[in-house]
Amino acid sequence: MYKGSFSLSTTEPMHLVDITSEVQKQVSQTGIEEGICHLFNPHTTAGLTINEGADPAVRTDIIRGLREIVPIDYPYKHMEGNSPSHIMASLMGASLSIMVSSNLLQLGTWQAIYFCEFDGPRTRSVHWQLLASS
Amino acid sequence: MYKGSFSLSTTEPMHLVDITSEVQKQVSQTGIEEGICHLFNPHTTAGLTINEGADPAVRTDIIRGLREIVPIDYPYKHMEGNSPSHIMASLMGASLSIMVSSNLLQLGTWQAIYFCEFDGPRTRSVHWQLLASS
Amino acid sequence: MYKGSFSLSTTEPMHLVDITSEVQKQVSQTGIEEGICHLFNPHTTAGLTINEGADPAVRTDIIRGLREIVPIDYPYKHMEGNSPSHIMASLMGASLSIMVSSNLLQLGTWQAIYFCEFDGPRTRSVHWQLLASS
Repeated sequence: MYKGSFSLSTTEPMHLVDITSEVQKQVSQTGIEEGICHLFNPHTTAGLTINEGADPAVRTDIIRGLREIVPIDYPYKHMEGNSPSHIMASLMGASLSIMVSSNLLQLGTWQAIYFCEFDGPRTRSVHWQLLASS
Repeated sequence: MYKGSFSLSTTEPMHLVDITSEVQKQVSQTGIEEGICHLFNPHTTAGLTINEGADPAVRTDIIRGLREIVPIDYPYKHMEGNSPSHIMASLMGASLSIMVSSNLLQLGTWQAIYFCEFDGPRTRSVHWQLLASS
Repeated sequence: MYKGSFSLSTTEPMHLVDITSEVQKQVSQTGIEEGICHLFNPHTTAGLTINEGADPAVRTDIIRGLREIVPIDYPYKHMEGNSPSHIMASLMGASLSIMVSSNLLQLGTWQAIYFCEFDGPRTRSVHWQLLASS
């Protein structure tokens, strides 16, 4: 069974944290050469996405874009006041599946894996599980 | 082979139905302790998402938010008049992958699995398959 | 190990390309009867989605809808000018998981798999991997 969790700290209300190297570290420790790495976010005001890792402006723009896309001042019913965060969580999604070959995540040249905080700052966790291919 | 389908009825044009206990029931019946549970929605005007299960206002707000996000009165080309439903389906997504440990879905404390109806009311189905980890 | 990649050409700045028959061809060649087919898009301004394949107007409307949803003239920071493409990529998602039974993708009657180009035209690739179920 090759699985585990790691935690991370977000420092802003909306914050995309690059978790690529942490996920690769977990994959490396399994020693599994070929398979599928599943990632899961167990929080309801956060999500997971894959996008450009090179220019930090891209993650800033994703945050700005989502703030424009999701109505912030709408008369929502949920009393905690974080309904936009819940909606953003569903727009990004809770699970990702990434191929592993030669013990390496098979990401594209410019891709990075992001944990998406939408109701921070908080301490959060990410679950992973690696299924080996036969 | 551990897989199957179950059906559900939606009662509103837009309706988030909590399917967590139904999915757990199917997982329980497999007896599989460890693995990945894949869920798939075979409809083009519906989706799957994971979000808060505690306060029913959250699912109302997700519906309200999506109605604001996706243009409703836009001059779409698809003659059936349900293009916003198709767009919402793609925003939520058709597949989910959830870890299973000790025969239990590894959801976060506040998470529930939702079938998202965007063109109801209808009878719908959800496919599931559980891959055991070795 | 049942996996591979295929390439495709997009011919418009925003272009949904139906890749269903190409994916089925790859699945057929594996001979695997039962399992999960994982798809992965390695690009940061493209995505994958499942939606209606019958009426071509639906894919046109998804493109039109996304153009309305994501602010185009917003003062983004990323200098390449394609921030809306990056945001659309994250809205659609990079990975999909589809059940395979009797060597056939278990899609719903009206479903097709789409590669979503948001910064074309370009030559793009899609990765796939099929995990057999025991």
